[in-house]
Amino acid sequence: MTSDKVIGTLLFEGFELLDVFGPLEAWGIHAQAAGGLTIVTTAENAGAVKSAQGPRAIADCALADCPRVDVLLVPGGIGTRRAVGNGAMLDWLRRRADEAEIVSSVCTGAALLARAGLLDGRRATSNKFAFSWVVEQGPQVHWVRQARWVEDGKFATSAGVSAGIDMTLALIARLADVASAERVATRMEYEWHRDAAWDPFAKLHGLV
Amino acid sequence: MTSDKVIGTLLFEGFELLDVFGPLEAWGIHAQAAGGLTIVTTAENAGAVKSAQGPRAIADCALADCPRVDVLLVPGGIGTRRAVGNGAMLDWLRRRADEAEIVSSVCTGAALLARAGLLDGRRATSNKFAFSWVVEQGPQVHWVRQARWVEDGKFATSAGVSAGIDMTLALIARLADVASAERVATRMEYEWHRDAAWDPFAKLHGLV
Repeated sequence: MTSDKVIGTLLFEGFELLDVFGPLEAWGIHAQAAGGLTIVTTAENAGAVKSAQGPRAIADCALADCPRVDVLLVPGGIGTRRAVGNGAMLDWLRRRADEAEIVSSVCTGAALLARAGLLDGRRATSNKFAFSWVVEQGPQVHWVRQARWVEDGKFATSAGVSAGIDMTLALIARLADVASAERVATRMEYEWHRDAAWDPFAKLHGLV
Repeated sequence: MTSDKVIGTLLFEGFELLDVFGPLEAWGIHAQAAGGLTIVTTAENAGAVKSAQGPRAIADCALADCPRVDVLLVPGGIGTRRAVGNGAMLDWLRRRADEAEIVSSVCTGAALLARAGLLDGRRATSNKFAFSWVVEQGPQVHWVRQARWVEDGKFATSAGVSAGIDMTLALIARLADVASAERVATRMEYEWHRDAAWDPFAKLHGLV
């Protein structure tokens, strides 16, 4: 047992590599500096999970065995097309979102939150490459077509792939402070886009 | 057997998550679009390998069983402190670098190439956070203190963590064309730093 806050990361077949490991890089560096955070990866079954790009990661535990989650991270990737029809996974998301302090998604991970009904009546965004499909998963969601990420209450949804890093730095700034987020970005040698409205990709993908 | 080019990625205990999965995200998207590329992860032993941030990835094969590598990817991370003393791994790097078309490193991965003697007389860079330690690993290397990445012949060495993405996009531009690299960056919703000399972090870490 740990009194650490748990960064609980959902994995499923066909998850997008950087959606998971961009945010976990940032959370991991913050955890080493600040302490009090533990990263846990979870999937339907513990063990190997193949990403959309091929390389496999390990789920530390099955969904049923996952400890209490304080910060939930839901990635996107081609696997979301199948995962949106997985009732057990959507049930798990509803229960874990209820107990979590922060619920975050990257890319088409927002489609999973939307299909679970968690974003109804809220503002949210997703990646711009598959935006119309994501919108179909949540007709009651106020989808933002141009945004790097959107925060609405405990929910934070980011645009595609690399946008998850910017959102995560904003969440670290919220949980700790801006200086901590800046230290993480500097350690990653990452140019943090701090403006949640910055999104040149909406135009490149024809959404604005 | 495959006639695909193999992107061979070295893993070791304590590898930096984003050093591996930033480049593999980019290579993976390019592979899906262009075909003819296969990603292989390899470590001393096949199976689970724990990252510096905690989450575990899977090595597809042991070093001894790794197929011919066309593009070698060597990550950094705290685990390099131990790996630089691993003679078998350095031998493997020398053999695979000899047969490879491109040898790339991210962050302190350059320390491994340097200790293997592969960078002697060449220009190279590394992350700026642990720069002095990396320099000690290769006194015959022409270390560049301010650079996002450095290309010298078949060797490409990047600065810390997120810089591996910029370097990989440049390598995709070299192997395919600039338009292909731009498509990958757009799909990742990533603002590609195309200027290899762009490096504000050298100053932040007191190197210039």
